[in-house]
Amino acid sequence: MFHAIRWSILVGGPAPAANSVIGACAAAFLQNGHECVGFFHGYSNLQEYHPVSHRLLPDTHYRVFTERDLRGLRNSQGIIIGTARANPGKTIKTHEDLLGAEKTKKLQNVYSALVDLQIDALISIGGDDTLRTANLIVQYQKTLPEGHPIIRVIHLPKTIDNDIPIVPFTFGYFTAVDIFAKITLNLRADALATSSYYIIETMGRKAGWLAYGTAIAGEANAVISVEDARQANLTTGGDLDLDKLSGYIVDLMITREKKYEKHYGTVVLAEGLAECLPPSTFKDSALDEHGHVSLGKIDLGKLVAERVAAGFEKKVGRPKKVTGVQLGYEARCAAPHAFDVMLGSQLGVGGYKALVEHGLDAHMVSTSGQLALDYVPFEHIINKDTMRSDVRFIEPGSDFHKLARFLETRVEKFEGETLRLGPRDETLTLK
Amino acid sequence: MFHAIRWSILVGGPAPAANSVIGACAAAFLQNGHECVGFFHGYSNLQEYHPVSHRLLPDTHYRVFTERDLRGLRNSQGIIIGTARANPGKTIKTHEDLLGAEKTKKLQNVYSALVDLQIDALISIGGDDTLRTANLIVQYQKTLPEGHPIIRVIHLPKTIDNDIPIVPFTFGYFTAVDIFAKITLNLRADALATSSYYIIETMGRKAGWLAYGTAIAGEANAVISVEDARQANLTTGGDLDLDKLSGYIVDLMITREKKYEKHYGTVVLAEGLAECLPPSTFKDSALDEHGHVSLGKIDLGKLVAERVAAGFEKKVGRPKKVTGVQLGYEARCAAPHAFDVMLGSQLGVGGYKALVEHGLDAHMVSTSGQLALDYVPFEHIINKDTMRSDVRFIEPGSDFHKLARFLETRVEKFEGETLRLGPRDETLTLK
Amino acid sequence: MFHAIRWSILVGGPAPAANSVIGACAAAFLQNGHECVGFFHGYSNLQEYHPVSHRLLPDTHYRVFTERDLRGLRNSQGIIIGTARANPGKTIKTHEDLLGAEKTKKLQNVYSALVDLQIDALISIGGDDTLRTANLIVQYQKTLPEGHPIIRVIHLPKTIDNDIPIVPFTFGYFTAVDIFAKITLNLRADALATSSYYIIETMGRKAGWLAYGTAIAGEANAVISVEDARQANLTTGGDLDLDKLSGYIVDLMITREKKYEKHYGTVVLAEGLAECLPPSTFKDSALDEHGHVSLGKIDLGKLVAERVAAGFEKKVGRPKKVTGVQLGYEARCAAPHAFDVMLGSQLGVGGYKALVEHGLDAHMVSTSGQLALDYVPFEHIINKDTMRSDVRFIEPGSDFHKLARFLETRVEKFEGETLRLGPRDETLTLK
Amino acid sequence: MFHAIRWSILVGGPAPAANSVIGACAAAFLQNGHECVGFFHGYSNLQEYHPVSHRLLPDTHYRVFTERDLRGLRNSQGIIIGTARANPGKTIKTHEDLLGAEKTKKLQNVYSALVDLQIDALISIGGDDTLRTANLIVQYQKTLPEGHPIIRVIHLPKTIDNDIPIVPFTFGYFTAVDIFAKITLNLRADALATSSYYIIETMGRKAGWLAYGTAIAGEANAVISVEDARQANLTTGGDLDLDKLSGYIVDLMITREKKYEKHYGTVVLAEGLAECLPPSTFKDSALDEHGHVSLGKIDLGKLVAERVAAGFEKKVGRPKKVTGVQLGYEARCAAPHAFDVMLGSQLGVGGYKALVEHGLDAHMVSTSGQLALDYVPFEHIINKDTMRSDVRFIEPGSDFHKLARFLETRVEKFEGETLRLGPRDETLTLK
Repeated sequence: MFHAIRWSILVGGPAPAANSVIGACAAAFLQNGHECVGFFHGYSNLQEYHPVSHRLLPDTHYRVFTERDLRGLRNSQGIIIGTARANPGKTIKTHEDLLGAEKTKKLQNVYSALVDLQIDALISIGGDDTLRTANLIVQYQKTLPEGHPIIRVIHLPKTIDNDIPIVPFTFGYFTAVDIFAKITLNLRADALATSSYYIIETMGRKAGWLAYGTAIAGEANAVISVEDARQANLTTGGDLDLDKLSGYIVDLMITREKKYEKHYGTVVLAEGLAECLPPSTFKDSALDEHGHVSLGKIDLGKLVAERVAAGFEKKVGRPKKVTGVQLGYEARCAAPHAFDVMLGSQLGVGGYKALVEHGLDAHMVSTSGQLALDYVPFEHIINKDTMRSDVRFIEPGSDFHKLARFLETRVEKFEGETLRLGPRDETLTLK
Repeated sequence: MFHAIRWSILVGGPAPAANSVIGACAAAFLQNGHECVGFFHGYSNLQEYHPVSHRLLPDTHYRVFTERDLRGLRNSQGIIIGTARANPGKTIKTHEDLLGAEKTKKLQNVYSALVDLQIDALISIGGDDTLRTANLIVQYQKTLPEGHPIIRVIHLPKTIDNDIPIVPFTFGYFTAVDIFAKITLNLRADALATSSYYIIETMGRKAGWLAYGTAIAGEANAVISVEDARQANLTTGGDLDLDKLSGYIVDLMITREKKYEKHYGTVVLAEGLAECLPPSTFKDSALDEHGHVSLGKIDLGKLVAERVAAGFEKKVGRPKKVTGVQLGYEARCAAPHAFDVMLGSQLGVGGYKALVEHGLDAHMVSTSGQLALDYVPFEHIINKDTMRSDVRFIEPGSDFHKLARFLETRVEKFEGETLRLGPRDETLTLK
Repeated sequence: MFHAIRWSILVGGPAPAANSVIGACAAAFLQNGHECVGFFHGYSNLQEYHPVSHRLLPDTHYRVFTERDLRGLRNSQGIIIGTARANPGKTIKTHEDLLGAEKTKKLQNVYSALVDLQIDALISIGGDDTLRTANLIVQYQKTLPEGHPIIRVIHLPKTIDNDIPIVPFTFGYFTAVDIFAKITLNLRADALATSSYYIIETMGRKAGWLAYGTAIAGEANAVISVEDARQANLTTGGDLDLDKLSGYIVDLMITREKKYEKHYGTVVLAEGLAECLPPSTFKDSALDEHGHVSLGKIDLGKLVAERVAAGFEKKVGRPKKVTGVQLGYEARCAAPHAFDVMLGSQLGVGGYKALVEHGLDAHMVSTSGQLALDYVPFEHIINKDTMRSDVRFIEPGSDFHKLARFLETRVEKFEGETLRLGPRDETLTLK
Repeated sequence: MFHAIRWSILVGGPAPAANSVIGACAAAFLQNGHECVGFFHGYSNLQEYHPVSHRLLPDTHYRVFTERDLRGLRNSQGIIIGTARANPGKTIKTHEDLLGAEKTKKLQNVYSALVDLQIDALISIGGDDTLRTANLIVQYQKTLPEGHPIIRVIHLPKTIDNDIPIVPFTFGYFTAVDIFAKITLNLRADALATSSYYIIETMGRKAGWLAYGTAIAGEANAVISVEDARQANLTTGGDLDLDKLSGYIVDLMITREKKYEKHYGTVVLAEGLAECLPPSTFKDSALDEHGHVSLGKIDLGKLVAERVAAGFEKKVGRPKKVTGVQLGYEARCAAPHAFDVMLGSQLGVGGYKALVEHGLDAHMVSTSGQLALDYVPFEHIINKDTMRSDVRFIEPGSDFHKLARFLETRVEKFEGETLRLGPRDETLTLK
C-alpha cells in the first residue's frame, strides 16, 4: 500500500534555538513535498503506546506540521513540540538486555507506534541520553526478524552543556553563555559598587563549558569546574576539599587587594563541583531518595560564599560581604542569538539532507568550519561498553582551557603581613 | 574667606541609572562654573572622619569631578563613587538622641568632614534609610549654636523597590522589572516546553512593586506580595500560612489544567512574604544572630516549590515538577533602560536646580507628568514619630493592584473529580 | 432579540506593546463572560462594508477572540489584528459634512457593519487620526434618527510619537526611545573610535519627543526638533535655514575640539525639520504628487551631514567625516519593554472598565501617577474647529525641554584662531 | 643597551569585540612582565613620524598600557585606541615599488617610529587592507641593509564583513548579524502588521556574509548578494539588471500571496550589489570624484523598493507599500556577544603566544574547532600578484549558501491569473 513518506521529529530537552532546528527541518521536508510529524514531549507518549488502550492522536500526542505551524518559529522561545525526560531505553544496561522482551518493552512500544503511524524515519534532537536512545532504537531493530519495516534514525546534537563529542559547539550554548555572562557583568558592577564578592554557580553537571564561557565572556576573576577539581591545591585524598576551594578564593581576594587595590570581584563555579566533594560534606537534606547528591538543593554558590566570608574574616581580620548566586533555568528557553539560530537551522536542514539526499541511517549530524555539514555514524560516537557517548570535557592544557588562565587573576599566597588600603580605609592584616 | 561653591554627592545603595543621576547632577554644576565632589562609598568614610587621625583624601575617599570623569557615564553600569550601608544616624532613635554628644558622634563626624572640606551642600541619593540620614543631618544642624556653617541637604529618591512615597516610580525600578520579566518569560517558555511550574521569588522585602511588575510584564499566572499576605484565604491567626499559600498555587495549577488544558505556569512571590510567616516555620539556620529571619537563607521560592509539588501530588495523584528560582542581584547594577536614564538624569538636574536655582534646603526632588520637577520638603515625607518616611505599599484596590488581578488566572476550587488531559495523557484525579 | 454583549477592538498604526493592549483588553472581556471581536487592518474592511457585495467574514476580516488567541500575546511583537491607514472620516472637513450622505458614506458603512455584526461598542487604538475617526463615529450617530442602535466608542491613545495630549507618555514611546538611544550609543562609540560625527535623523514629523528622548538617553551632543526650528539663530525670514543649522553643528564641533579636545560626536535631528525648510531647498524629486515634502525621500540626516562636512572643512581647513543615519522603522514593532507592557496592559483594562464598569461613551482612556486610570471625554481633547486633537509639542522652557539643554554641549562661537590638537595632530585653523 | 621588551598593538577599523582582543593581548603581555604599547588611530600618526618635526608623544599618540587601562575593557563598546583608514602602503602597487625611497616614505616613517620607540614587534588588527600593510612592513624590512633592527609583525584578522580567508568566522561578525537580524525581525513584524514589504540593505561591499547571516537569522524571505549577481535570471549582458532584480522580488510577493496568503515580507540585499549594476543606472550625484559608485549615496534599498512598488502595481493592478531600509553603522561598535568576546579574547592571547611562546614573525593568528589557535604564514594568505589576500566569498553550492536557499520562499512565476485574497479583500489580477 502506498503512503507518502513521513518523517518525524522529537526533542529530548530544552535549549535556545531548538525551534530553529525544528522549523528548518520541517520546512525542508514540506517544501520538498514530504510529510513531517512532530511528537509531543519526547518519548513520553511513544513509549506508552498501545494500539488499543493507548492510542496516539493528532494534536494531542503529535502534530502533522503545516506551513502555518512554522511561521515565525525560527527565533521563538521554547520548544514547539515540548520535551520530556522519558527514556524508553532506561532498562537497557547491556547488549543482552536488548534481546529480552521485558527490558525492551518500551523500545518496542516506540517502534510499534512509529510503524503504525507509517513513519519512515525518526530525527531525534537531544543530548547524550537522547543520542543513547536513538542508537538503542537502531540496535533494537537489528534484533527483529527479517522483513520488519525499518525506521531509520538520525540524531541532531543538542545540549547547552556543550558536552557531546565531535560538534565544536552545540546550538544554544553561546546564547546561554551570553545570558550568564551579561548577568555576571551586572554582578561585577554590583560588586565594584558595593566593595563585595559574588560566587556564581552555573549549570554544568559534568563538563565545565558553561562555567568557562561565563567566566571568559563575563570577566570573572576565576573559574573552577569539574575539570579542575583534581588539582593538587584543591583536593584532599582525591576529593575536592571545600576548605581548600574557599582558601583559594580568599587568597584571590587578598591578591586583588594587595596587588591591584581591588576590593571586589566575581568567581564562577560549575555546579558539578558539588559531586566532587566527599558525601560527608552534606546534610541528609541535600541527598535524594537514592542517597545521591541533589545539586539543586546544595546551592553550591551560597555554600562556598559562606565559607569564603568566614575564611576571609579569619585570615584578614575584617568582614567582607560574599554572596552566592545560582544561574541556570534563566537561559534554557531564552530567545536565541544569531549564531545559534544559524547553527540550529543548519542542523535542521542537515537532518533532511541526511535522510533524503544521502539516504543515511544511524548517523549524527554535525557541523565544522563555516556551518559545513558532517554526518557521523553512531558507531563512531557511541562507546561500545557504556552504550553511550563519552562526556566531552574541556581538555586541560587546550587553548580553550588556557584562555581562562590568561584572563583570570593570578592568585598569590600571602601570610602574616599588614597592608592599608582604600577606599574605605580597609586594613589588611593577614593572620 | 572666599572659596568656590562646592557641592557634593553621595549614594546609599545600588540601582540601575545611578550613574545617570550622578553624571547629570555633576555636569550641571560643572557647566555652570561650580565645583562638585563625589564621596566614595556613602557615609562609610565621612562618619569616621577625624581631622588628624582619619583624614579624607582626594581620589581615596572622594573625587573632585572633572568633565573627563563624566564622559560616557550616563548609561554606564554600577555606581562610579560606590555605595555602602554605613548609617551615621543608626544610633538616633528619638528626637532627644539628637541632643546627646555620644549618639550624634557619627553625625558630627559627617558634619565636620563636610565643613572642613568646605562643602556648601550635600545631595544624597538613596532609599528610606538614606533619606532618614539626610533629614538627621538637617535636624542635627538645628541643635548647633548659631553661626555655625550651614550645610544644606537635598535628597534624590533611589530604590529599585519603588517604596519611597511621592515619586510615582523611582529610577531603576523599570529596568529591574524588565530584567526580571524577561527572565520570567524565559521560565514561562521553559515551563511550557517541560510541562512544569516555576515559583519565582523576587526582591522586595517590604512592598511588592518588583513582584507585581515582574508578574505583569512577565506574564506570570499569579503574584503574591506582602500586601496580599493578610487575605483570609492565605492566613491563619493573622500569619501567612505556608500550607494555604501552597494550596492556593495547587488550586491554580488544577484550574489551568481543567479550564484551559494548560500544564505549565509561573508564579511570582515577593521575598518579603517570608517575614509574614510565623517564625516557627523556619529551622534555626534561617535566622540571623538576632533571631530575625534571614531572607537570603530561606530561599522562599524553593521552599514553596517543594510544598507545592508535594501538595499537588497528594491532591491529584501524580507528580509534577515545580522549581524555585531566586531573582535579585542580577538587576541592581544592570545597564539602565531609556526611561530610567531620562528619569535619573532629570533628578540629577533637579538636585542642581534645587540648590542653585531655587536655593532650597531639606527638600527631596521628585517628578510628575512628563518629567516635570517637584521639590518636596522633608517634613512632608518624614513621619515625625518614626523619623523616617513611611513605606509606600501597593494600595489594595488601586488600579495598579487590580491590573495584576485582571491578568492572572482566576483560581477555582476543585474537589473530588476526575479529568483526563493531554498532552501526556495526564489524568487529573482530585483527592 | 437577545444577543451576548459584543465588544470590538481596532488598531490604527504600529507601536511596541500594541499586543499588550489588545491582549489585556480582550482578556478582561473574556474572563468576565463577554464576547470580544478584533477587526483586521483597522477600518480598511469596515469602511467598504456592504451587507451583500462586501460582507465581513470571521477569520478573514475579523476575529472572535478565544482564550487561545491571547496566550503569550502580551510581549509579542507586531499587532495581532494588523493595522492600516484607512480613514473613513477623511471626507469630513466640517461639521456640515456630517450631514451629507455622500461624505459620510464610509462612516455609514462602518456603522452598518458594526450594527450588523451586533457589536455594542468599539474600542479604537491609535493616534490623532484614529482618535478623530472615533469622535466622528460618535458625531455621525448623533445625526441619525432616534431609536437607532447606539455603538459606544472608547479610544485608547497610541503613538510612538507621544504627541497626543493628556496621557503623560504613550505606550511604545519609551521602547522606541530605548532602541534609538542604544543605536545612538553604538554610533557614539563608533564616532569616538573613528574621530568622526554622526547626524542621526529620528522619526517625529510634528513633535520632537522621539528626537529628544533619543538624544537624552543616547548621550548625543545636541538635539534639534520642530519645536526648536523657530530660534533666531537657526532661521531666516521665519523659515529654518539649512546653512544656519549646519553652521550651528560646525560650531558645536569646534567647541568640542577646543574646549574638551573631543574630535567626535553625535547630533540628533527630528525628521519633521525638513518641513520647516523653505520648499526651494529641495529638488523636485523630494516632493510628492501634491508638491508636499516627502520626508522619506529627503533623508535629512544625510543632507545635513554633507553640509556640515563642507562647512567644517571651509571653516577649519581640514576635512572631517560626517555621516547621516536614519532611524525609524526599526522600532515600530520591537518587543516592548516592561514599562510599555505595563502601561499598555493597563490601558487595555481601562477600555474594559470604561465600557463595562463605568458605562462610558465617547471617552479616551489615559493614566497618571502609578498607572492610575483616567477617563477623558472626547470633547475635552478634540478641538472644535479642527475636529481633531491638537498636537502635543514639547513645551519650550518646560523641565523636559530644559533637560536636553543641561545635557548637551554648550556651543561657543569661534572666529579666526588657531589651535593644535591631538590625537591625530589635527590643527584647527578657523577661517 | 638593554631595554625591556616592548610589544605594540594597532587597529585598522571598527568591529564589535575589538576591545576584547586588545584587552586580552595587552593583559597577556603585562601579566608576564612585558611592556605593551597601543598606537592611537591606526597608522595615522606613525606614517607621519619624524624624530624632530613630528614626534610621537605618550597619551597623545600612543599609550603604554597599565593594568588600570584594561579594567572592564573586555565587553566595552568601541576601540580604546581608536582606528583610522590611514594606509602607509597605499603607494606600493608592485614589488618594485618597495625599492624606491619615494614610494616607501610612509612605510619608512612607520619603521623609524617603531625603532625609535624601541618597539620589538607590532601586532596589527584589521581587515585585508591592514593585513596588506602588515605584510608590506615585513617586505619593506627585507629591503633594508643587514643589521637593521627587526620589528616582527603579527596580524589578527578583524572585519565584520567576514571576508578574510582561513578564519572560519571573524570576531564581530555574529554580533553584527544578531543586531541586523533582530532589526529585520522587527521589520518583519511591522510588515505583517501593515501588510507591506521591507527591502533591507546591509553592509557588505564585496562578500555577502552579513546579508546572508541577516536573512537566515532574521527570517527574511529572500537574500541576494554579490555572489548571486551573476545568475542568469538577474542579469543582462553580464551586468546585474535592476528590472530583473525588481521583477524577481515582485514574483516573490505574488508567490507569497498566492501560495500562502501572505501579504507581507522582507528581502535582504547586500550593498555591494550596487557595484554590479551598469554605471548608467545612476545619476552623476551617486558617483564620487573618480567616477566610482558611492554606495552610501545610492541607497540601494530605497532604489529597489521604488522599482518593486512600481513593478507590483503594474503587474497586479493594485498598489503595495514597499519601504527601503539601510543597515550598517548601527553595528560596528555595538557591545559584543559572548561568542565574539571569547573569539576576540582568544585571538588577543594568540597574538601574545605567537610572539612570545612561538617566536613567530609574519604570521596571521586564526582559530578552528573549539577556539584552538592556528598560526598562518603571511605567504599562505597573501596573493603574490595582488600583494593582498583574496576576498573570501560565500562559495556557491556550499552548505552555508544552500542554507539560505532552504529557508527562503521559493519563487514561482505567475502570469495572467486572478485570485481573491484576504484580509483586505486584496484581489490579485496578474497583468
